[in-house]
Amino acid sequence: MKVSALGEFGLIDLLAEMISGSQDKSAASYRKLVIGIGDDAAAWKGDTGTQLVTTDSLFQGVHFRLETTPWYELGWKSLAVNLSDIAAMGGVPEYAVVSLAVPPETEVDDVKALYQGMLDLAQRFGVALIGGDTCRAPLVSITVTVLGGAKDKDEKVLTRSAARPGEKIAVTGALGGAAAGMEILDKKLEIDAGSSSQLRKAFLQPEPRVAEGQKLVELGVKAAIDISDGLMSDLKHICDSSRVGARVEADRIPAASAVRAHFAERALELATAGGEDYELLFTASDEVIDKVKAELSCQVMVVGEILAGEPGSIVMVDARGEPVRPGKGGWEHFNA
Amino acid sequence: MKVSALGEFGLIDLLAEMISGSQDKSAASYRKLVIGIGDDAAAWKGDTGTQLVTTDSLFQGVHFRLETTPWYELGWKSLAVNLSDIAAMGGVPEYAVVSLAVPPETEVDDVKALYQGMLDLAQRFGVALIGGDTCRAPLVSITVTVLGGAKDKDEKVLTRSAARPGEKIAVTGALGGAAAGMEILDKKLEIDAGSSSQLRKAFLQPEPRVAEGQKLVELGVKAAIDISDGLMSDLKHICDSSRVGARVEADRIPAASAVRAHFAERALELATAGGEDYELLFTASDEVIDKVKAELSCQVMVVGEILAGEPGSIVMVDARGEPVRPGKGGWEHFNA
Repeated sequence: MKVSALGEFGLIDLLAEMISGSQDKSAASYRKLVIGIGDDAAAWKGDTGTQLVTTDSLFQGVHFRLETTPWYELGWKSLAVNLSDIAAMGGVPEYAVVSLAVPPETEVDDVKALYQGMLDLAQRFGVALIGGDTCRAPLVSITVTVLGGAKDKDEKVLTRSAARPGEKIAVTGALGGAAAGMEILDKKLEIDAGSSSQLRKAFLQPEPRVAEGQKLVELGVKAAIDISDGLMSDLKHICDSSRVGARVEADRIPAASAVRAHFAERALELATAGGEDYELLFTASDEVIDKVKAELSCQVMVVGEILAGEPGSIVMVDARGEPVRPGKGGWEHFNA
Repeated sequence: MKVSALGEFGLIDLLAEMISGSQDKSAASYRKLVIGIGDDAAAWKGDTGTQLVTTDSLFQGVHFRLETTPWYELGWKSLAVNLSDIAAMGGVPEYAVVSLAVPPETEVDDVKALYQGMLDLAQRFGVALIGGDTCRAPLVSITVTVLGGAKDKDEKVLTRSAARPGEKIAVTGALGGAAAGMEILDKKLEIDAGSSSQLRKAFLQPEPRVAEGQKLVELGVKAAIDISDGLMSDLKHICDSSRVGARVEADRIPAASAVRAHFAERALELATAGGEDYELLFTASDEVIDKVKAELSCQVMVVGEILAGEPGSIVMVDARGEPVRPGKGGWEHFNA
């Protein structure tokens, strides 16, 4: 069977099962493991706290095109997507290592701009770039690995598997901006300068919700994921891992205002399936969500509820409770 | 300026300088840093010990060809090169995360074979595979990041910068096998089956010297590097970092016996510049090296001496003390 037939998530499931079956569970390292494959980051118990690690790659032609992505933003984003994974665990990012491949004809100044983008973002969160690897390749690719830890000595982290029936589903910020920005860049769409700049920035320079993730843990949230594949797709990851169902109310989904303004009928599709917004999707009781709304400086929107139904089954309904078919179920890399 | 004009090591130096100048040195993470960019692995002081991290990528068409590299061996090697970096620090590898890119038309069984190769090697050293990322790309690439720690509570690690004039230079095992194996595969050379299998294995399935690296620390060795670029090139890294010179005796370089037998006149070139043998190159006093020879089960060969001369300058001499020109100075990825 080809990888394309299995799809990205099918391949990940198969590999996770294979790896789980083959590991030496008596090894000291394995015995300290708290969360292995299948969450935003892996976690293990260090001597005095929970440690986190995550890794993510950006490939030319798959995740970005050099024609539309400035090098500075490419560097920024390659770190941002990893910081977002640490944010989705409620953790504190500390160190980053970078494996960079570029064609030999790449300008040195472009590589420097790429690193400057990473360094500027790293500095905001006190992350030190401590190593890596560079090599030539026919295409540009950047793999960043970020290490971090749980914020407090309680060692609590957010996971995909902790959602419980009856909890509300909430998201930070607004959605669909990154997908709209990518379309503006790819198709050279002309819209007003303010909206254009805002949407392009949502795609090129996402702001990882690091402080917000830490606050969620502090306020008692247990389950979260970052929105990289798309709201519906990432909610499905939570439902699959937590063995629960979910109902989402289409009218409550916070599409970014510039998305509503310029992509009118497609706003719901972009906001639910576009992906790459790097907002946090989390579940909690009404009481906890009220506290989150009071404490976070960004918008927090309740978009639905966790159900006891068929694990992994999600329905989207309109204001009258009628089922709505979402645009598509997020994007899997191997099917794209 | 193009990256090709600067070369791999020139680019690394430039980036290291830029990163060092831009980091927030007051950040908590930075203050715990022990070894940053420029060694085999980065190290920082965890709450109870020195932590290590290293990352390395293998790219199709650059580091391997699918025509000559079975998937199982590709998985093995992608982890082995990282374990070798931890070995070069004298550390204990604990966790690995893997970022894999494959074309959609890749067979799932091939991806499984790749992971099996990684898992089999991981198990030998008690390393747990705890996460990663898969995506589609036009070419296969594998980036592995390995985390580990110093072996004992003294927190000592081997570095490239600790070589001192008067110390002897020694290598574990035999050299040139990997480069010879690559040539056998690339050019479909036919030599006797035993030698062919041995040399191909040296290239495809290197054995990282993890236990040996730990033993070196224990016995008092301070400076080491793994031989990935080639003996002369890696010795130059040590000399540059330690601000010392070196003299190497050509006749003492332990070219693998199958390399001597089948690549007669080129044995010295393959053994000094071939690279990818993943043996350890280290420096120490005669007394310490005697202890190392007694304790290690593999061959340990003294090949030269660290000098107080011009930092980074290395001479190779024959049995009569006459200068010998080595084949080439190892290989830099961007110039290849």
